[in-house]
Amino acid sequence: MRAAVYRGPGEIAVEEVPKPEIEAPTDAIVRVTHTAICGSDLWFYRGESDREPGSRVGHEPMGVVEAVGDDVRSVEPGDRVLAPFVVSCGRCEFCRRGLHTSCVNGDSWSGDNGGAQGEYVRSPHADGTLVRVPDRYADDEDALESLLPLTDVMGTGHHAAVSAGVGAGDTCVVVGDGAVGLCAVLAARRLGAERVIAVGHHEDRLDVAEAFGATATVAERGEAAVERVRELTHGGSTHVMECVGAASAMETAIEVCRPGGTVGYVGVPHGVTDEGLDVYAMFGDNITLSGGVAPVRAYAEELMADVLGGTLDPAPVFTKTVDLDGVPDGYRAMDDREAIKVLVKP
Amino acid sequence: MRAAVYRGPGEIAVEEVPKPEIEAPTDAIVRVTHTAICGSDLWFYRGESDREPGSRVGHEPMGVVEAVGDDVRSVEPGDRVLAPFVVSCGRCEFCRRGLHTSCVNGDSWSGDNGGAQGEYVRSPHADGTLVRVPDRYADDEDALESLLPLTDVMGTGHHAAVSAGVGAGDTCVVVGDGAVGLCAVLAARRLGAERVIAVGHHEDRLDVAEAFGATATVAERGEAAVERVRELTHGGSTHVMECVGAASAMETAIEVCRPGGTVGYVGVPHGVTDEGLDVYAMFGDNITLSGGVAPVRAYAEELMADVLGGTLDPAPVFTKTVDLDGVPDGYRAMDDREAIKVLVKP
Repeated sequence: MRAAVYRGPGEIAVEEVPKPEIEAPTDAIVRVTHTAICGSDLWFYRGESDREPGSRVGHEPMGVVEAVGDDVRSVEPGDRVLAPFVVSCGRCEFCRRGLHTSCVNGDSWSGDNGGAQGEYVRSPHADGTLVRVPDRYADDEDALESLLPLTDVMGTGHHAAVSAGVGAGDTCVVVGDGAVGLCAVLAARRLGAERVIAVGHHEDRLDVAEAFGATATVAERGEAAVERVRELTHGGSTHVMECVGAASAMETAIEVCRPGGTVGYVGVPHGVTDEGLDVYAMFGDNITLSGGVAPVRAYAEELMADVLGGTLDPAPVFTKTVDLDGVPDGYRAMDDREAIKVLVKP
Repeated sequence: MRAAVYRGPGEIAVEEVPKPEIEAPTDAIVRVTHTAICGSDLWFYRGESDREPGSRVGHEPMGVVEAVGDDVRSVEPGDRVLAPFVVSCGRCEFCRRGLHTSCVNGDSWSGDNGGAQGEYVRSPHADGTLVRVPDRYADDEDALESLLPLTDVMGTGHHAAVSAGVGAGDTCVVVGDGAVGLCAVLAARRLGAERVIAVGHHEDRLDVAEAFGATATVAERGEAAVERVRELTHGGSTHVMECVGAASAMETAIEVCRPGGTVGYVGVPHGVTDEGLDVYAMFGDNITLSGGVAPVRAYAEELMADVLGGTLDPAPVFTKTVDLDGVPDGYRAMDDREAIKVLVKP
């Protein structure tokens, strides 16, 4: 089979690789029909995080089940499924409390499981990991493209909103206009927020934020952005979503947070470790920092219900579509910020 | 009048200073009968934080109202009162939501208001700041010594427990065996915690923790302490209280927190800014960091009800009592860890 492989900074190749096979009775093999390139893939692409050259890439698989192990009960060959960006067993303490990202049997879409930007993946713990798309929508291309973001960015944006404590009638702020930030706007509105202020640097993305329900957008940078948000919120927002994962964005998020408020953060905190987090700023005003890597598996069913019900549609985050051979160009387009997020149809 | 004055690292003097007077119609003058030396006073005493030489010190006043301004309604001369470590108006947005430490009219026990380690203080915003002790207990020395910690450490320990989300039946961990940590043990038990594990370095203080209701104590340091707590909690606690305010204690608190759990922190995060906070450790396991400077005014009434009802008694944190002339010796005793907390009767 063919799959995208990381060859070094700036280099993604599509190569012939071994097709994964059932190894454990809880495995399933999925033929990938839809997947995506993630903002977090850009860290290794840019050489800003380590990754083994030769490793397969991609972690947002959707496809059709081709084979299942003897113990798999929830899906069968022919089912259309999607899977979160991490594998989880569905049975341990953490899965049961909705924290699938801390699953004690957790695994990733890498190594022998195959990256999701390829023709096939093996899903360990298929019953815990795979989410079946109802038959009625299994071949509905529009529905599938709207469901694909549930593998990562839509669940992650939702986690930001949940972590920030967004509820009906609230005023909230989303820092970041990437795919996750845009999904956080959708999530906040879905949770009943009355005012959603989107902070970003790109006019075209802020237009999407408005289409997604942002009631105001702030395109200023640094201190000017902070001042503008404070003005719009009369002193800061009680619910702030940090959807970038960079030290500067975290700083902005804390600065626009109202005393006693909460920053929900979901971006891999890139660079924050080097500079550290200014705890003093949070301490004095009792600002809570909540969130982390999003347990998107926990949110799949409720978000899917709304997507299929027609009240939630994150598909506009995909602004470019490629086939498997187009994956290297997809990385380039995201790196150049030419595309918000790239849909891949292997 | 006479008051304790900071003269430089390691130097506290008791000197003649101007007696404060009513300046605004919302002021009250309080003759201080009881006050205390705080662990946070040791930072400037040790030269580890800046303080203007010549400034009056102390921020935990209890006493008898001597005079009130024309607009003061809640207390009158002769009333026994206590006051939190910060002044708050009681009327602004933040006071009304119980975040008195972010009061927009907030003030401190310093400058012309006088430090609390002196014969008199002026309380600005007396209606918002002063808490009246019911007449029945106004001259009950035992009750007064049990109420005095409500000015700071008992409210702060309670804030740690509230911030960590401690509730009935929970297993929780308190990092720190100073006065605040010991009060956090009391607070956690009061909130219904079933198991309270106290982590500290001093056998005598851990004995107090046990007397306060800790169900286990851990005297190991560093990684050994983390291992022991993980063993006792089968993998970490969902509710951790950081009651030291040092980088190493914060690190321990995060390490003993169970995935998906919350660290409630109330210690001034001394040294954490230099080293930064390791956000990665929190990110991967969705550990929430909540808390900050404790709005003890918000908790005064409920804690007072329990103290006067006989179900809460933090007085054992006072292990040494001095008069005003003994304040310098009190600082020395706390600096030498000879006393947990010093009670001052001016």
